[in-house]
Amino acid sequence: MSAEPARFISPPSLLDHVRPQALALPESGIVEVMNYGRERPGMIPLWAGEGDLPTPSFISEAATRSLAAGETFYTWQRGIPELRAAIARYMARLYGIPDDPERFFVTGSGMQAIQIALAATLSAGDEIIVPSPAWPNAAAAAEVVGAQTVFVPFAYDSARGFALDLDRLEDAVSPRTRVIFINSPANPTGFVASHETLRGVLDIARRHGLWIVADEIYGRFYYEGGENGLAPSFHDVMEPEDRVLFVQTFSKNWAMTGWRMGWIEAHPVLGDVLENLIQYSTSGVAAFMQRAGVAALDRGESFVAHQIERARRGRDIVADALLPTNRVRLVKPPGALYLFFGVEGERDMRSLALRLIDEANVGLAPGTAFGPGGEDFIRLCFARGEVQLAEVADRLVRWLNR
Amino acid sequence: MSAEPARFISPPSLLDHVRPQALALPESGIVEVMNYGRERPGMIPLWAGEGDLPTPSFISEAATRSLAAGETFYTWQRGIPELRAAIARYMARLYGIPDDPERFFVTGSGMQAIQIALAATLSAGDEIIVPSPAWPNAAAAAEVVGAQTVFVPFAYDSARGFALDLDRLEDAVSPRTRVIFINSPANPTGFVASHETLRGVLDIARRHGLWIVADEIYGRFYYEGGENGLAPSFHDVMEPEDRVLFVQTFSKNWAMTGWRMGWIEAHPVLGDVLENLIQYSTSGVAAFMQRAGVAALDRGESFVAHQIERARRGRDIVADALLPTNRVRLVKPPGALYLFFGVEGERDMRSLALRLIDEANVGLAPGTAFGPGGEDFIRLCFARGEVQLAEVADRLVRWLNR
Repeated sequence: MSAEPARFISPPSLLDHVRPQALALPESGIVEVMNYGRERPGMIPLWAGEGDLPTPSFISEAATRSLAAGETFYTWQRGIPELRAAIARYMARLYGIPDDPERFFVTGSGMQAIQIALAATLSAGDEIIVPSPAWPNAAAAAEVVGAQTVFVPFAYDSARGFALDLDRLEDAVSPRTRVIFINSPANPTGFVASHETLRGVLDIARRHGLWIVADEIYGRFYYEGGENGLAPSFHDVMEPEDRVLFVQTFSKNWAMTGWRMGWIEAHPVLGDVLENLIQYSTSGVAAFMQRAGVAALDRGESFVAHQIERARRGRDIVADALLPTNRVRLVKPPGALYLFFGVEGERDMRSLALRLIDEANVGLAPGTAFGPGGEDFIRLCFARGEVQLAEVADRLVRWLNR
Repeated sequence: MSAEPARFISPPSLLDHVRPQALALPESGIVEVMNYGRERPGMIPLWAGEGDLPTPSFISEAATRSLAAGETFYTWQRGIPELRAAIARYMARLYGIPDDPERFFVTGSGMQAIQIALAATLSAGDEIIVPSPAWPNAAAAAEVVGAQTVFVPFAYDSARGFALDLDRLEDAVSPRTRVIFINSPANPTGFVASHETLRGVLDIARRHGLWIVADEIYGRFYYEGGENGLAPSFHDVMEPEDRVLFVQTFSKNWAMTGWRMGWIEAHPVLGDVLENLIQYSTSGVAAFMQRAGVAALDRGESFVAHQIERARRGRDIVADALLPTNRVRLVKPPGALYLFFGVEGERDMRSLALRLIDEANVGLAPGTAFGPGGEDFIRLCFARGEVQLAEVADRLVRWLNR
């Protein structure tokens, strides 16, 4: 502020030379709470989006066999043909779409599927619209490429929970908008878009020439489903030429969070673009890991059914215990793996999360970690067994009634 | 060009809406040749930067044990502490640097190490300097973030091979330059920077406030080494506060190309930045894979020594057969895993590579795949056993003398 030249400038630090967008990346808001609570004896951690079951052995053993057979060389950037075929079969079976392996591109995690989908569609200075609160990593991945995230808050109704307001969504479109990111069923809100809402989003995308990045990774964790149990999907409403990129993961359905394996589904005409983006980021996924993916898809149905049923029971155990206390703002979520709720009299969710570790020995994630609209909520992951969730429910009810 | 409104415009295709930088990414120039030759009976493929040995079983079995023990959950974004400690021990042993795990960040391949190093340092519109010919993926990763690559051709001397001209390097620095990418020992040229050259590069980087991304993945494949056998390294000439990011891989030393595992070495002050970039790309590497990395580093020395000796023999077998024909332009490379040579009378290396498949049943990579300066050369990877390489030498010599 003074015209006097500064005489004692310290040499520029390494951090001064880091790219500004990289320096500005948010740290995960959950990490502080995890670090605070990680070592508490008896603490039950429900802060991460992860169940407590290890990967089933029929899946792990497929990787082990492949390793023992020496499948340790470079492989196809898009994924081994056997896995792309298995994904195509699986998706055709689930969604009634054509069985076409050329639509599928194996990635090193669902996160990388998002990163590559955004690298294919967003340039520096572009905008992406994200309904919020939301899992923060999609917006952060957009920031890495220098794009801006425009958050559109979900509407909230204490009877019906979270809803997507299509007018608000369309109002957020600007000349710089390139992508609408739709996660349904949603983390952390449990929001599930109806077919009507999906059609509305698609209409907006068509009108404005936008991409939709569809994150339907919780598509099978839907508790109001009919016969096939699936949440409504863009597969049900789109035309083949619509600009929809699906991102998927093996993490939740098959208890493979630690594997870092997922896929992108896209029109085959995008094949070369996506392959190049894979090539220039991680150059593909280990073939022996992909063999495990084939086992999961081809032989995992009874395990997935078990996971879904367990999650539904988990949701009911905790929600049915919390609701009668009348001290929570909670609507039973129709989908995904989370209760996202407010607590009467509590405004500071970060400090509430820290206190619940001390006072209830339960680890939850503050809603502040999920962006605008999350401030009044806290997230509990119910992908656990009933005994543990009954204990969690007891601890929380005792704390609420203290 | 006409004022007349176009009446028969076809609807914009999906590709029209892809981000221009993503659409413009180069396809690997090796793929065409591989696709042409892949199925030939008896063809010996030396086009990839990969040996023919599978990962040793003591490494694979560490992953298998971890999988069987259920290590299939989310883990540390920066890498499991055991692997970061093992890398630190290994690097301290090799380079005499302090044993500090905080300097190391596990990545999903050496390629991802490069991608993240560039995402930390390059914005859209920035420039990166790459001596050329070079492995094309670093430049391509820079293009993904919207940066431009400025290639600086190596000097070539038919007696001494490839050399880096520091004046030319400094002349390439512009106000937009942020990074100098130095690969030594180099793919495809076999160039190895002397300590004097490394000091010169460091001086240029210091003078202009630039980052160095140091790709020393072939640092142990050095055939003119003294006691420790290592190629000169930036470790030997830098100060702790210099802006050097090292990228590394498990691929070559431990025959783990298919694993997609590597690391970044950086000043610990960059820890949060690098962790965030990992989080928002693949969110880390499977813990069970990392256990294999620990085994490789802690128990892999005799295997690595065998690999290096095998490569040296491989280099000699082929080079000592080709040189006496007087039909090749070849200097025995002091490092890395490649012969990069010209053939008398041959100008079109793409067509030469295709003809060598038909006429010599040997698969090589055209130098055109490696950017400016590579046009007159063809690449042969000698990371194979002697019997096969002797056969390759025979076939090539017969073809040259045909």
